[in-house]
Amino acid sequence: MSSFKIAVLPGDGIGHEVVPEGLKVFRAALAAHAPGTQVEYSDFDAGAERWHRTGETLTDEELEQLRGHDAIFFGAVGDPNVPSGTLERGIILKMRFGFEHAVNLRPSKLYPGVRSPLADPGEIDFLVVREGTEGAYAGQGGSLRYNTPQEVANEVTVNTWYGVERAVRYAFARAQERRKKLTYLHKHNVMVHAGHLWRRVVEHVGQEYPDVTVNYEHTDAAMIYLVQDPGRYDVIVTDNLFGDIVTDLAAAVTGGIGLAASGNLNVEGTGPSLFEPIHGSAPDIAGKGIADPTASILSAALMAGHLGLTQVAEAIDRAVEEDLAARGDAARGTSEVGDAIAARIG
Amino acid sequence: MSSFKIAVLPGDGIGHEVVPEGLKVFRAALAAHAPGTQVEYSDFDAGAERWHRTGETLTDEELEQLRGHDAIFFGAVGDPNVPSGTLERGIILKMRFGFEHAVNLRPSKLYPGVRSPLADPGEIDFLVVREGTEGAYAGQGGSLRYNTPQEVANEVTVNTWYGVERAVRYAFARAQERRKKLTYLHKHNVMVHAGHLWRRVVEHVGQEYPDVTVNYEHTDAAMIYLVQDPGRYDVIVTDNLFGDIVTDLAAAVTGGIGLAASGNLNVEGTGPSLFEPIHGSAPDIAGKGIADPTASILSAALMAGHLGLTQVAEAIDRAVEEDLAARGDAARGTSEVGDAIAARIG
Ligand SMILES: CC(C)[C@H](C(=O)O)[C@@H](O)C(=O)O
Ligand SMILES: CC(C)[C@H](C(=O)O)[C@@H](O)C(=O)O
Repeated sequence: MSSFKIAVLPGDGIGHEVVPEGLKVFRAALAAHAPGTQVEYSDFDAGAERWHRTGETLTDEELEQLRGHDAIFFGAVGDPNVPSGTLERGIILKMRFGFEHAVNLRPSKLYPGVRSPLADPGEIDFLVVREGTEGAYAGQGGSLRYNTPQEVANEVTVNTWYGVERAVRYAFARAQERRKKLTYLHKHNVMVHAGHLWRRVVEHVGQEYPDVTVNYEHTDAAMIYLVQDPGRYDVIVTDNLFGDIVTDLAAAVTGGIGLAASGNLNVEGTGPSLFEPIHGSAPDIAGKGIADPTASILSAALMAGHLGLTQVAEAIDRAVEEDLAARGDAARGTSEVGDAIAARIG
Repeated sequence: MSSFKIAVLPGDGIGHEVVPEGLKVFRAALAAHAPGTQVEYSDFDAGAERWHRTGETLTDEELEQLRGHDAIFFGAVGDPNVPSGTLERGIILKMRFGFEHAVNLRPSKLYPGVRSPLADPGEIDFLVVREGTEGAYAGQGGSLRYNTPQEVANEVTVNTWYGVERAVRYAFARAQERRKKLTYLHKHNVMVHAGHLWRRVVEHVGQEYPDVTVNYEHTDAAMIYLVQDPGRYDVIVTDNLFGDIVTDLAAAVTGGIGLAASGNLNVEGTGPSLFEPIHGSAPDIAGKGIADPTASILSAALMAGHLGLTQVAEAIDRAVEEDLAARGDAARGTSEVGDAIAARIG
């Protein structure tokens, strides 16, 4: 009988609405497909409300408590009344960096029945492997002559062989078990140091995967392909910032951010992985019970897969797929969607 | 009678095919709408072929010769057989930086008759003001422990109040004369130093434009809006790298990179501005005579406008608009398109 400890962090805004639905479906799938599995859920409170009350984001002690869990189930952070960056750096990025989330895995699939904004989307089914622990997200930078006409504000994009290799290696392995096509994105014609490091690492690791076809695209060019021919992609690997941008576009062309799940994976087994929708806290619709919880539910499937609960993961995926196919245009509330998907399990 | 000196740099690949068409239409429009205007064209040879032959890109002496011109009409650079970055940094970026091209102006418009890949594009008509002289393009960075497992490759994104203000000021002025709506894009929730500088500059300059509505979007979120609701934009202002990415997507949703023109503007009158299609050298189709020259022709219109030749600019725009409306799906060669548009002038 397996047992797991899962940390639950809804965060801000619609995080509080979608996370319970993700867990509702996860529980239903466990009951049906892995009965007897022991799961201990621990709630963590982090986000705007707590920051306003105490000035705290996520403390170092809490980071250590989180480390003792098998997985973290996360909602979203961000609030217009908190200085931009405070919650992001203090909560989600603190976990991504603290737990060496080398890979930010973002599947992009156009499910049957889902309407794409593209006139002729074709079949879309690819994975984005976004490096998760470095690049422009390293948080290294500063301002000189702050708030004067002579101000200089720098951000340092930090890229290491170590960090790039972890992500690239994971991407090759996934491509190998899929359609054997890897595309890496960068701007190595402009950011020559970082870009050439990426290139050398891809070439190096690629020698171990002779049957995986590799090609390179400038990130700007990939924007065009993503709307003109998204079916060309199998696995995309790219850096933290390009990955952030590309996955929002990928979500849009596959029917919207309400459906896009992600896993922040510690690929070395040295800390818990984290699962979250790629959407944000959406303050504009928060509290109305109208947010689509599908991304959170699909994130629960990724979490189940990561925990080795393959049947649970497949059951959730299947239930979501059925629900999407049956959905049509009728507006449904957040918990209605969760109930409908949970009801299809079993 | 006015007279102008225009430097012509086709560059690489399809640059050699589209630039002559741009000039063909420019000449036709001059003859019809500004007869007697004296234009002296000087050819500059820079690109892969010369680099292979001599190891040179664009020399400092040539940069000084270019400075004596009223405008530069550029094609594209980049070649798979030249180390990535060599031609880009040595030619186009050398001019953008050397001539203080503060604003990289990229209009995005869905012309009647042009098919968008979006199912329901609506009306699309916005300008992107991309900062052109700093950010991740500053070329500051390097590698430590090159090509070892301990390698660290950094790129420094450099942003100055001076550089950001020039671009932002231009964007406000353009928004003021249009639909009075300015959107600025960044990731200030992650790149807090650069992002907050941008925010402070936008707020500062915005005080002089009380009737322009300003809003902020994260760059990743803008990817979604650009495919779901591109009609929301009037003027977008953003940094060099985000601008590079966003304008390729903008080009894609308005019918493709073959139609997207740009001006690299020296807004202080201290050097020549440069006009170029936003597409690259397209080695895959170069030499076949099938590249669409429309972007180069529209770049010639931007150049005419910049030189104060308003009627010439309008005549080119009108001829392009008519040609696009009549185009249909029939494949036409590069010079056929140039001829057709030139024939509509007058
Ligand atoms: C909230 C923010 C820090 C985050 C990011 O930029 O990575 C988000 O956009 C995402 O993609 O998960
Ligand atoms: C060729 C390259 C350096 C250039 C850029 O990145 O700016 C191009 O993509 C563009 O957008 O003009």
